[in-house]
Amino acid sequence: MDRRSFNRRLFAGGAVAATGLTSLSVASAPSATSAEPPPRTAPAGGQVRTIKLYAETLPDGQMGYGFEKGKASVPGPLIELIEGDTLHIEFENATDVDASLHVHGVDYDVASDGTRMNKSHVEPGGTRTYTWRTHAPGKRKDGTWQTGSAGYWHYHDHVVGTDHGTGGIRKGLFGPVIVRRKGDILPDKQFTIVFNDMTINNKPAAETPNFEATVGDRVEIIMITHGEFYHTFHIHGHRWADTRTGLLSGPDDTSRVIDNKIVGPADSFGFQIIAGENVGAGAWMYHCHVQSHSDMGMAGLLLVAKPDGTIPNYEPHHPGHTMGAEKSPKGAEAGKSADSGKSAADAGKGAAEHAGH
Amino acid sequence: MDRRSFNRRLFAGGAVAATGLTSLSVASAPSATSAEPPPRTAPAGGQVRTIKLYAETLPDGQMGYGFEKGKASVPGPLIELIEGDTLHIEFENATDVDASLHVHGVDYDVASDGTRMNKSHVEPGGTRTYTWRTHAPGKRKDGTWQTGSAGYWHYHDHVVGTDHGTGGIRKGLFGPVIVRRKGDILPDKQFTIVFNDMTINNKPAAETPNFEATVGDRVEIIMITHGEFYHTFHIHGHRWADTRTGLLSGPDDTSRVIDNKIVGPADSFGFQIIAGENVGAGAWMYHCHVQSHSDMGMAGLLLVAKPDGTIPNYEPHHPGHTMGAEKSPKGAEAGKSADSGKSAADAGKGAAEHAGH
Amino acid sequence: MDRRSFNRRLFAGGAVAATGLTSLSVASAPSATSAEPPPRTAPAGGQVRTIKLYAETLPDGQMGYGFEKGKASVPGPLIELIEGDTLHIEFENATDVDASLHVHGVDYDVASDGTRMNKSHVEPGGTRTYTWRTHAPGKRKDGTWQTGSAGYWHYHDHVVGTDHGTGGIRKGLFGPVIVRRKGDILPDKQFTIVFNDMTINNKPAAETPNFEATVGDRVEIIMITHGEFYHTFHIHGHRWADTRTGLLSGPDDTSRVIDNKIVGPADSFGFQIIAGENVGAGAWMYHCHVQSHSDMGMAGLLLVAKPDGTIPNYEPHHPGHTMGAEKSPKGAEAGKSADSGKSAADAGKGAAEHAGH
Repeated sequence: MDRRSFNRRLFAGGAVAATGLTSLSVASAPSATSAEPPPRTAPAGGQVRTIKLYAETLPDGQMGYGFEKGKASVPGPLIELIEGDTLHIEFENATDVDASLHVHGVDYDVASDGTRMNKSHVEPGGTRTYTWRTHAPGKRKDGTWQTGSAGYWHYHDHVVGTDHGTGGIRKGLFGPVIVRRKGDILPDKQFTIVFNDMTINNKPAAETPNFEATVGDRVEIIMITHGEFYHTFHIHGHRWADTRTGLLSGPDDTSRVIDNKIVGPADSFGFQIIAGENVGAGAWMYHCHVQSHSDMGMAGLLLVAKPDGTIPNYEPHHPGHTMGAEKSPKGAEAGKSADSGKSAADAGKGAAEHAGH
Repeated sequence: MDRRSFNRRLFAGGAVAATGLTSLSVASAPSATSAEPPPRTAPAGGQVRTIKLYAETLPDGQMGYGFEKGKASVPGPLIELIEGDTLHIEFENATDVDASLHVHGVDYDVASDGTRMNKSHVEPGGTRTYTWRTHAPGKRKDGTWQTGSAGYWHYHDHVVGTDHGTGGIRKGLFGPVIVRRKGDILPDKQFTIVFNDMTINNKPAAETPNFEATVGDRVEIIMITHGEFYHTFHIHGHRWADTRTGLLSGPDDTSRVIDNKIVGPADSFGFQIIAGENVGAGAWMYHCHVQSHSDMGMAGLLLVAKPDGTIPNYEPHHPGHTMGAEKSPKGAEAGKSADSGKSAADAGKGAAEHAGH
Repeated sequence: MDRRSFNRRLFAGGAVAATGLTSLSVASAPSATSAEPPPRTAPAGGQVRTIKLYAETLPDGQMGYGFEKGKASVPGPLIELIEGDTLHIEFENATDVDASLHVHGVDYDVASDGTRMNKSHVEPGGTRTYTWRTHAPGKRKDGTWQTGSAGYWHYHDHVVGTDHGTGGIRKGLFGPVIVRRKGDILPDKQFTIVFNDMTINNKPAAETPNFEATVGDRVEIIMITHGEFYHTFHIHGHRWADTRTGLLSGPDDTSRVIDNKIVGPADSFGFQIIAGENVGAGAWMYHCHVQSHSDMGMAGLLLVAKPDGTIPNYEPHHPGHTMGAEKSPKGAEAGKSADSGKSAADAGKGAAEHAGH
């Protein structure tokens, strides 16, 4: 944890103590009597960066992407950009079959499409540089509006098994992408949840991931679906807006607030919640709400602890694999490994080269 | 029908006669030449109320929730709240198996989660008080916006049959919840439609519910999905906005207007339509638009009568079970039975206790 | 191509040359240094028009709708309206079974419902006039807002095979409808994509349609789903907003920007993209992202050519049937055949009768 978010975590804990912990678990109209510093937000984009990405076969036969050789994971590492950024990805295919990198949401030309049709896949042992570009919203020369690139997106293989990457996706060749807009609020913790066929993050029922947070953490969920089936993503005790950021622009925003969303393959969305806000600490289930899917184990836990680390009512009888900081911002920055110790707040600063626009 | 909505009904009928009935069935830009009184709206919330709720096994083997013993229904009774309200639900499990009450959208701590994992279920014959809280949108201390609780939500069992309540849901243990925001427009009539597996409101094809309204009624539909399958909800001759309320904030609201929506288990949404607006009286089908589902009987009727009670072209050859006021506002208030004779407009006034904020 | 859009195409090409073609294929923050004329927009509605529509059995056993006898197609012809327009459709059933015309989104009374229940179907050889009305958003007499009719809608048979038209829909009796709002931006090219069971536009895997455009064309996609299955619609290199028009109102619009959308039977949506914007010319796949569906052939191409007609990297090895101007605006106007040579921009002008409001 970098010092910045560490300090913030402490401060938030202190604030909670000062105003009384029960204010977090008792419903009330939000009060603004004691101001807190505003959350960190994304700086302006415009960086040009280069990272390495490897596709590998994992010991158990699954396949994954990773920033370093021998460190591939399922899902692959989170790649974060800010509108205006350009990312060159030096991709090495360390598997023994043709593989590729296809991305949703950002700008790329056909040479970075990652499809066999566009000859943008990579043979075993080969390398290829994929370039992703992003842009802020703005007016075109004809006066019409162009949408920006910001959103919760994802990348995946498009050639393993079939020309649509069905084999690669099944085995784990996918990962999350976030493109932020300047001023977007940055989270304290980030968790990626992928409903891939009947698994969560390719884990079978007994090993689905649990995620850990502390009351008051600003938790960001990136939710991606892959495979064959439709699902409904539900989380207990928390809800979000069905908007670009999962947040509302204000009380006049007419968007739907939901805690359950139907999704199908290649859909992706994300949102931020304040862990335990209005509901307190506890073991909060997240699961697919298709009844047979949850019954077969498509469920895990968001474990929201009190500042002292305890979780009311919770006995860790759930067989899920608990992941304390699987996707914390420090490891989320594009081009940095999970251990690099840099926070997402610094994402716009460390780039070697500036795009100049 | 309480006097207030009775008067409103008469007035609307009179207005229709004065301006010519055909104005309702002929497309035209809305005119505002003769003003009508604005519709009733939700008052401020902040009440604390206590109601009783029973889970029961019905004579046919299904299960239902009800406000009074022996009066359980499928779906269970509508529970309405206004942002800021708190509801204590004294729940009695009158079935012979463990059962619970789990709710979507509102605030509750783990003791009111309704899950076996959080030990918040109830053994046969037992009781438990579940507490639901709600909150208005507002600014947090750090300046960010918090969404409010308003929405079309629902409650259901989470333990009968499986740890996800699959057996309870299949048998009928579910019901609608509406949380309104101060100022939200109140309807004249309310109907709940639950697509539960291949049934509507657990009724087989030959007995699907019909709903009755009169041209000009402001009809509110609460639509919930449960079970295994995805569906597409469609209604003939009427459409709504894909927003929190189903209404648009004005002509600049960019939200989609739809008459068909894909839904999956535990999704819920709602909207208000003016019965027969622009299209006139008639028998208007609503149905799942998945072709085999509608062919197998997932269809019913919104019967929109002229003020004289007649329905053009309609011969009641549809085998559905017609429900004139199944879910009228008068029975919708939390804590009141369907016969209590109080309107939704009074929902914010009759509470025994005021929350004081 | 009418002179107006021909000129526009030339002008756009010129503008591209003047500012450098690469600006279209290299990501950059949109610049507004050299202004272009604003795009054409929809004029005010209010026309009353009459068209003919035929349902026919096609030589291969499929069924289609067409504006002229012997010219039925699958999907049927695009019908465009502007809010305020009324369309009388003189429908002739040239098939040998009962058939009908049911429409989504617009206003119609039960006599134009197209259902057997409302006796608004047509026997073989028979005729019937269906009337569709539309309206702009506006205030009701009680001060509440009424949504307008604008949207991407569709029409289909409701009686062939079953009382829900399952047989008619399966064989091809469906088509797109667009209702525009005054001021809505008009496209250069329009393509209709219907996911009907496991086909695209009822074409099997080897014959799925490709669509042709030139970099800079404002391409409008109307996407409709029919049949039994859910799908996820995805297009490479392009994205849209999940709003009424597929566009954002500006940078403060919180709506989601997506490139993948879950859809079910009778869902419809549409959007406009600038072909190759930020990504350049190329063969861009569109496909269902349910893995087995794409693997079985639910995929086609958006072929975006450079102004010189070439497509980088592309060898036409895709077996799809390329359709250069399948749904260009010139043929899209209601009541005009595909050869009538009138542009969508003229849609509001050529009507025989004006509705007078």
